[in-house]
Amino acid sequence: MPSEPIARMAAQLARLPGVGPKSAQRMAYHILTTPLDQARELAEAIWDGRRSARLCSSCGDLTSTDPCPICANARRLRNQICVVRDPRDVPAIERMHSYEGLYHVLHGALSPMDGIGPGDIRIRELMERLASGVEEVILATNPDVEGEATASYIARLIKPMGIKVTRIARGLPVGSDLEYADEMTLSRAFEGRLEV
Amino acid sequence: MPSEPIARMAAQLARLPGVGPKSAQRMAYHILTTPLDQARELAEAIWDGRRSARLCSSCGDLTSTDPCPICANARRLRNQICVVRDPRDVPAIERMHSYEGLYHVLHGALSPMDGIGPGDIRIRELMERLASGVEEVILATNPDVEGEATASYIARLIKPMGIKVTRIARGLPVGSDLEYADEMTLSRAFEGRLEV
Repeated sequence: MPSEPIARMAAQLARLPGVGPKSAQRMAYHILTTPLDQARELAEAIWDGRRSARLCSSCGDLTSTDPCPICANARRLRNQICVVRDPRDVPAIERMHSYEGLYHVLHGALSPMDGIGPGDIRIRELMERLASGVEEVILATNPDVEGEATASYIARLIKPMGIKVTRIARGLPVGSDLEYADEMTLSRAFEGRLEV
Repeated sequence: MPSEPIARMAAQLARLPGVGPKSAQRMAYHILTTPLDQARELAEAIWDGRRSARLCSSCGDLTSTDPCPICANARRLRNQICVVRDPRDVPAIERMHSYEGLYHVLHGALSPMDGIGPGDIRIRELMERLASGVEEVILATNPDVEGEATASYIARLIKPMGIKVTRIARGLPVGSDLEYADEMTLSRAFEGRLEV
């Protein structure tokens, strides 16, 4: 068996999502045989990235600067807010290269089964942003049970305020994960969005 | 797009074997949302493991102690040496829990196409170990072209010395990778080994 620090590296890598014991061991041996510099770069990138990670005080996205690069970008439209469940949904939408507004990351979805209610995700923070000239809220939560429930809940809160609320079209396969949608499907879903 | 340290983390993870850009991003977001302690443990395990990695001066396996735990284990049989191509082949054989001898890691296989000759892998070091009471050399290089060539070459060197040389049986699917063989197949291959 490999000696302790090597076994520990493989055990740590096996905790990453989608990495089983054999892939972890393969990765570990890869790292053990790369130049020292490259292993240091990997370890530093992990630690620096994690250490500098915070939530943007405006949109709630993961970022190392506050406000995040998107909120700080003067060319982004301030009157559109796209609401997503997770930080990893933001790069998925950015890959379309067609959305020019801002984001709001909820960090979760309503799920009574799991005991996740409106107070557990960033809905209050969304409501607080609406005062500043927002004209449209695009609900881009996942097209699954929790995502639909979350979209409906937010729509009911916002519509009485006279702000346009749209939901991305169900061009996305139902039950799938927004993160893995291709750019074309996502573009269609954005174009075909319907007022709620 | 994610800000720089986060993008750098994903880029570094994407350099690991078997990790594409999307898996790397998924891993990065996982790391960004784990507790600080866990991210530090991962980074430290990578760096400590790599920094402490050296080759065992006897068998050539990757280890953080010299001699490695196997060579240092007084209960391992000193009269059998199992020759493998890569360090990652050692845990594959250890998983059988039936081999009790020592190892010798060549760190490569003969491959004239790639310009890898006998001087480029640890064959000389193997020959130097044979004086000390070795009674059998088990050739457990991969059952592919390079592995067979390497096994034949080493057999021709050692047989004249009156030491028994065996080759693991081709119970392993030809062209496959020893690292991924299941314990049963590997056990069969060890049992059915034939004198060269």
